[in-house]
Amino acid sequence: MLKIFKIGGNVVDNPEKLDKFLTDFSTIEGKKILVHGGGKIATTVSKALGIETTMINGRRVTDAETLKVVTMVYAGLINKTIVSKLQRLGTNAIGLCGADGKLIVSKKRPAEPVDYGFVGDPDPEKFGTDTAQRLIDSGFNIVVAPITYSGEGELLNTNADTVAQTIALGMSKIYDTELVYCFEKSGVLRNVEDDSSVIRSITPEYFERLKEEGVVADGMLPKIENAIRAVRGGVKSVIICSSDCIKQDGYGGTVISE
Amino acid sequence: MLKIFKIGGNVVDNPEKLDKFLTDFSTIEGKKILVHGGGKIATTVSKALGIETTMINGRRVTDAETLKVVTMVYAGLINKTIVSKLQRLGTNAIGLCGADGKLIVSKKRPAEPVDYGFVGDPDPEKFGTDTAQRLIDSGFNIVVAPITYSGEGELLNTNADTVAQTIALGMSKIYDTELVYCFEKSGVLRNVEDDSSVIRSITPEYFERLKEEGVVADGMLPKIENAIRAVRGGVKSVIICSSDCIKQDGYGGTVISE
Repeated sequence: MLKIFKIGGNVVDNPEKLDKFLTDFSTIEGKKILVHGGGKIATTVSKALGIETTMINGRRVTDAETLKVVTMVYAGLINKTIVSKLQRLGTNAIGLCGADGKLIVSKKRPAEPVDYGFVGDPDPEKFGTDTAQRLIDSGFNIVVAPITYSGEGELLNTNADTVAQTIALGMSKIYDTELVYCFEKSGVLRNVEDDSSVIRSITPEYFERLKEEGVVADGMLPKIENAIRAVRGGVKSVIICSSDCIKQDGYGGTVISE
Repeated sequence: MLKIFKIGGNVVDNPEKLDKFLTDFSTIEGKKILVHGGGKIATTVSKALGIETTMINGRRVTDAETLKVVTMVYAGLINKTIVSKLQRLGTNAIGLCGADGKLIVSKKRPAEPVDYGFVGDPDPEKFGTDTAQRLIDSGFNIVVAPITYSGEGELLNTNADTVAQTIALGMSKIYDTELVYCFEKSGVLRNVEDDSSVIRSITPEYFERLKEEGVVADGMLPKIENAIRAVRGGVKSVIICSSDCIKQDGYGGTVISE
């Protein structure tokens, strides 16, 4: 089983949480890949460089200067910090962005209706299966930054959840694959206020019921829809759990499977 | 023959020079590795972030904040820009720093007599031959940023010439290896004012004569001494040439060999 973990800004920005997560990650046996998101550092660096951060619908607009900043911060600082911490933990990591070995080729998002600038949506058909397989089979644990390759010499800023999903879909063609989204809650909650109300298992049918009942709503909807798409595309299961719990049985979270 | 090219700030800082170099590099046949230095961008970013750049004897002092900047700029922006440009040219590049696959493990330089901060000197005995060989044999062209790994979870800023030499010495144990230092002049010049006065070939014995005659002096001395050390350590030849000339016969530069 190949396991793909995704961590976001809430882990990356918090050195203690990050250290705990990486310690747990390094003890997980078998083949594994880590995808990390950005964090507040990019905004801090942008601000210092006098680059205005523009957000539309909660998404960062990536102009040419912002692209340089996210490439520096995501593919440089965060990626290499994680790699060096993993090496110290005895996990032989290798840090990549989508341009390395053409791992993740994406399509620049059209300027209409909203121009997000240098932002790319990964093309699952162009996933670098060969690159990933060679590295994994050589014993490397790949650590991926959410900067992808346009196919035409450009780097593109890309959503880290989508990067993780693209890798999972691609790898599911050659390995049994599990995709683990780590976030700040323990899983999909029956009651948002109660972190112990985790729904342990969701199938596509059950998801329909949960939607009808209004149990899941808002930001959780696209997350689960994405997970179901991954499962239908060949990923064995997608887990939504806390970054603190990846050593727990079933990750103490929500398992989404067919 | 494995060829290792090193380019410095004069190429990295100049988009036209860089594009020409990468175009030439991509047409060179056989196994090859590219090591790149930093450039002025790190100083610009440092300044913008309010970090003072301290130089002692022409070398940058790397405090904790400066280490973050050089990691961002060298291992992030410059490394991934080069990788994406090479991909467009059809060269399947993979960009690494010394922490990736523990490619280059270095020793933090002692704080006495001068404290350069987070600066490392590579340990040739700990070179990641295995990592390099697996990647090269998998068909990847490695692009290396001059950030190395302390062996204890830390990243260290490292001189790019030394990184290139460490790789060449390590790889010379398994391949016939050639190390090509690209810089702004055409080679070692008999007359510094005359770029056509390139000395085509230097052996250790001839080097002694050139020193006695005062033909080579100043900054060129340590460069050639380093080259001779590499050649004595097993590297077939070291070439000092212009970044514009890597397609020329004998690189139009100076070949240093035993």
